[in-house]
Amino acid sequence: MSFAKLDALGHRLEALEHALSILGADEATHMAVGGGEKRAEAMANLAGMYHAQSTAPEIADWLDAATADSSDQQLALEEFRRTYISATCLPTEFVERKTAATMRSEQLWRELRATGDWTSFLPALEGVVTLVREEAQMRAEALNLAPYDALMEQFDPGNRIAQIDPVFADLKSFLKSFVPEALAAQDERLTKRPLKPLHGPFPIEHQRDLGLAAMRAVGFDFTHGSLAVSHHPFCGGVPSDVRMTTRYRTDEFLSSLMGVLHETGHALYEQGLPKAWSHWPLGKARGMGIHESQSLFVEMQLARSPQFWEFTLPLVRQHMGDDAVAGWEIADILAHVNFVERGYIRVDADEVTYPLHVILRYELEQDLVNGKLEASQIPEAWDAKMIEYLGISTIADPKDGPMQDVHWPSGAFGYFPSYTLGAMIAAQQWTALEKAQPTIGTAIAKGDFTAINQWRADNIWSQASRYSTPDLITRATGEPLNAVHFKAHLKKRYLP
Amino acid sequence: MSFAKLDALGHRLEALEHALSILGADEATHMAVGGGEKRAEAMANLAGMYHAQSTAPEIADWLDAATADSSDQQLALEEFRRTYISATCLPTEFVERKTAATMRSEQLWRELRATGDWTSFLPALEGVVTLVREEAQMRAEALNLAPYDALMEQFDPGNRIAQIDPVFADLKSFLKSFVPEALAAQDERLTKRPLKPLHGPFPIEHQRDLGLAAMRAVGFDFTHGSLAVSHHPFCGGVPSDVRMTTRYRTDEFLSSLMGVLHETGHALYEQGLPKAWSHWPLGKARGMGIHESQSLFVEMQLARSPQFWEFTLPLVRQHMGDDAVAGWEIADILAHVNFVERGYIRVDADEVTYPLHVILRYELEQDLVNGKLEASQIPEAWDAKMIEYLGISTIADPKDGPMQDVHWPSGAFGYFPSYTLGAMIAAQQWTALEKAQPTIGTAIAKGDFTAINQWRADNIWSQASRYSTPDLITRATGEPLNAVHFKAHLKKRYLP
Repeated sequence: MSFAKLDALGHRLEALEHALSILGADEATHMAVGGGEKRAEAMANLAGMYHAQSTAPEIADWLDAATADSSDQQLALEEFRRTYISATCLPTEFVERKTAATMRSEQLWRELRATGDWTSFLPALEGVVTLVREEAQMRAEALNLAPYDALMEQFDPGNRIAQIDPVFADLKSFLKSFVPEALAAQDERLTKRPLKPLHGPFPIEHQRDLGLAAMRAVGFDFTHGSLAVSHHPFCGGVPSDVRMTTRYRTDEFLSSLMGVLHETGHALYEQGLPKAWSHWPLGKARGMGIHESQSLFVEMQLARSPQFWEFTLPLVRQHMGDDAVAGWEIADILAHVNFVERGYIRVDADEVTYPLHVILRYELEQDLVNGKLEASQIPEAWDAKMIEYLGISTIADPKDGPMQDVHWPSGAFGYFPSYTLGAMIAAQQWTALEKAQPTIGTAIAKGDFTAINQWRADNIWSQASRYSTPDLITRATGEPLNAVHFKAHLKKRYLP
Repeated sequence: MSFAKLDALGHRLEALEHALSILGADEATHMAVGGGEKRAEAMANLAGMYHAQSTAPEIADWLDAATADSSDQQLALEEFRRTYISATCLPTEFVERKTAATMRSEQLWRELRATGDWTSFLPALEGVVTLVREEAQMRAEALNLAPYDALMEQFDPGNRIAQIDPVFADLKSFLKSFVPEALAAQDERLTKRPLKPLHGPFPIEHQRDLGLAAMRAVGFDFTHGSLAVSHHPFCGGVPSDVRMTTRYRTDEFLSSLMGVLHETGHALYEQGLPKAWSHWPLGKARGMGIHESQSLFVEMQLARSPQFWEFTLPLVRQHMGDDAVAGWEIADILAHVNFVERGYIRVDADEVTYPLHVILRYELEQDLVNGKLEASQIPEAWDAKMIEYLGISTIADPKDGPMQDVHWPSGAFGYFPSYTLGAMIAAQQWTALEKAQPTIGTAIAKGDFTAINQWRADNIWSQASRYSTPDLITRATGEPLNAVHFKAHLKKRYLP
């Protein structure tokens, strides 16, 4: 009876989530420019209804009284409980205060980012850091975790500093020497085979057709999703109707194509979640690290491999015309899509340097949460680490340094590690998959992703939120999270 | 204080309406084919929340206790009260029973319509008629109205048989002789100037550009709306973001263009509603008859007039190419868009014969509601009237007769008159406007709709739901609803 109440609640919450997801995707793709104010008002109201319904006090009674008829229901109950505690462990008064502060801070950040006006932005960020420290403390008490662990728990349940620290330390020490090696190897390759420039214009309609063909090949189900255009590419919507977007530039076509493949990775996860559980927390994607592992599996493991381009280069010629890549070989494409470069900006980074951007933030935000670092000290601390990890300085221009990301201004602390965990999990999954299916290279070269997707469906997608993030990794790959496979992947791809 | 509660309720209901409207438009335009089941579930849940929130018992107390600070608030309060009574005057048990019955009946109708299997459909319709009689009785008691008046009250507040009957009688008697006259006049015109065939194909992209140009010219605000494609054209969305659709065939371009102009008429009304009241019932469009008057004003009064084509024929050449209508004069286009024909199907009817289709239904549904006619007797009664009014028989094929419309299968009785009231109101508005602005013909020929739209904004759009339908008509046009101006319009357009 109590379970039935939770089940009915799940349906109502799913309806509100459905509305919020589709309205969000619609806003970025099809909304008229003047529709924003009313859309924001409607979404805020719907989010308020969602919050009120998902945190109602009687849910605690239902959770106490509920008995499960099956092991699935037992798991469902545990996830209902976990999400209820996460949603209710902060006092409403605090949530309202934090929402107001982060909204102001994020707005200010949007205004000031372009000019990199750190001084004007600092007071807002200081306010956010104070609130995040409070939040971490309250979550830590409710969950009996360390403060930063309690923050990570929102994004990847089960992630703990104790497990991540040694893995990141291993990866960091590897990358500090690997980045120069990879750059040297790249220089040598480019001396022998210079980078071929792309000669546009590449018409958007052709790029769109190529993107759709790649999505279809990799397994995107167009009966449950679509591709549109938005300023910032995303994968949104709902599992039954995944709304993917990309953006196009006409001077080259690779950034849109690789972006489409990345988002397709997210989309396949959503489309592969168990349909019967879609209204339970148990039926949702496990968390941000696993989600990123699915997008990076497609983008990094599959789509930047030589085998993938055996199949895709002809697809490019078919959709973009023979002239688009006249005389190109697979190595010419790979030189583009696997180009390594030391840079300031995380979102523009390649897979070799990207983890250093993340580890820098992971280290700084722990210190910020634990009070070892104050917001005012960020630029110096950031610069010191950028010099140490990547050999470049950001002190002169905060917009290339600590003002580049939306996460801290919006109060999302504990999220950054998920990106690099995703990259490592993807590599670890690749190893496990290759062990189970030694011929996957041949299959990829033929554009046949059936067996690969079946393995991912069995081991990841269909598991939804059955297990904690670390347990899901171990079950899928046969070993706990580690950096071994990611390091091996980088060596194989970037060294001679 | 009580008014503040109603105001806050209005914001919550507006958010749910916003979600339902955008999700509805999205479903017809951008949803993936496999997304329908979850979409239906989400929308049913959101509609349930809307119903629960809009009929909550405490609203009655707020309405009793509320005092208005201004005359606008006083009007707002009256409309809150009217919609609350309309939403709560039927017992929940009855609403659920009717919803289930009409859903089954509508589904059955969709299945059986194509084959015109009246016998299999009849039991479902009989069930609906029984429920509608009950509903009419309950609404009549709650509103102190006659049963059919109580049904019409849902669609056009203030509409009464006592006022409509004489107007429809006048129009019917006029049309019975006018239709043959108009057909004879058309024959004579076509003898002198034969109908020029349209030579396609007309590319969809060109048709879309032409449609957008026409929308823009007539006053559609693209910062608050857009045009997409759907199987059944509609005007949906919300006033801040109106979602219009059309469909294209490539062998001719006039049906899409005229459809776009019709829906633009609806859209202008929505875009012109007072923004500050958008969360109050008072701020909504008045009703179906007035809404239809706005679409028909654009489609019939403006867009099928010779002046309109002085401006639009060059637009056609610009977007469709010179060959599209090579050698055509305005009279050649008018012969197409004002073609009169006796037909079976209401939605395909021209403006001359259309009212006879409506009056037939208006007469039959009154008898059905009042128990003078049983559902089983519809085919004979329908046929008799079709023969009397239009001289054609539908007895052989119910899909061309009483099975053509969704209204009765879905339980919407009292709606049909709105269509023809709209046509008459549009003609009456035209007369009033022409009196106020004697040069509008010249303005239209130049494609200048500014003054016309200002008059409509002042007299109709900005008035929202301030007045009952009859009062709004009288205030806007200076006289009560009558058939005089519509008859004059038809004579001017169709007779020599």
